[in-house]
Amino acid sequence: MNSLLIIAHGSRRQASNDEIRELTKKVSALSSDNFDLIECAFLELAEPSIPAGFEKLINSGAKKVQVLPYFLAAGLHVTSDIPKAVKAARAAHPTIDITTSQYLGEADILPTLLMQIAVNSQSVT
Amino acid sequence: MNSLLIIAHGSRRQASNDEIRELTKKVSALSSDNFDLIECAFLELAEPSIPAGFEKLINSGAKKVQVLPYFLAAGLHVTSDIPKAVKAARAAHPTIDITTSQYLGEADILPTLLMQIAVNSQSVT
Repeated sequence: MNSLLIIAHGSRRQASNDEIRELTKKVSALSSDNFDLIECAFLELAEPSIPAGFEKLINSGAKKVQVLPYFLAAGLHVTSDIPKAVKAARAAHPTIDITTSQYLGEADILPTLLMQIAVNSQSVT
Repeated sequence: MNSLLIIAHGSRRQASNDEIRELTKKVSALSSDNFDLIECAFLELAEPSIPAGFEKLINSGAKKVQVLPYFLAAGLHVTSDIPKAVKAARAAHPTIDITTSQYLGEADILPTLLMQIAVNSQSVT
C-alpha cells in the first residue's frame, strides 16, 4: 500500500494547523491511483509529529511512504530537519520504503501562480 | 506606478533567501501589465526588511504597493506580523496606496499542485 505524508512546519495558532489538515483532506479527495493513504504531520508545535505520522500510515498498512515537504524554500527545515526525521523513520521502520518528493517551493509553476494571485487580488483589496 | 512586494519569512540559510530572490526575478520576468516594479522583502533573518522593501519600491516611483505574503498557512506571521508591518508602512508613507493580496496558501490550486508534485516525484526518488 502506497502512502503520502505531507510534512508542514506547524504553528502555535491552531487554525493554521487546521488549514494543513483541511488541505490534506482536499489532496486525499483528488482521484488518484497513486496513493492509498494520505496524512499530514508537523515538524513542531502541532500533532501528529513526524514519527507519529509515519506510524499512523504504517499501522494502517502502508508499505511505502512518500514524504512531501510542504515548505517554500530550502531552509534548514528542508535541508536538515526533515532529512534527519526521514533517516530516523527509516531506522525505526526498516521494512518500509521511504522516499522524499520535491518540496513545494521547487515547483516550476510557482512564479505563474504568484502572478495570478497578485493580479486576482487587485480587484479584491 | 503599481508595484508588488513579495514578503517571505527569511532564513538563516542564505541559499534559501536567494531562492526567494530568484523567484522574484522569475515573477518579474512574466509579461504583465499589472505591475511596473516587483521586489521581495523578508520578515526576519534576511535583507531587505519589510520597511526597506517598501522604501525601495517607493523610492523607485511606486504609488501603489501590493503586498503578497509568500506563506503557506495563516499562522501568526500572516495574521499578525505582516498586518502590523503593513500598518507601519501606511503610517510611514501616507500618500502611497498599500494593499494586501491573498497569501499563497489560500490559492485554490494548491491541493492539485501538491498531488502533481507527489506523483511526478514517484519516478525520481
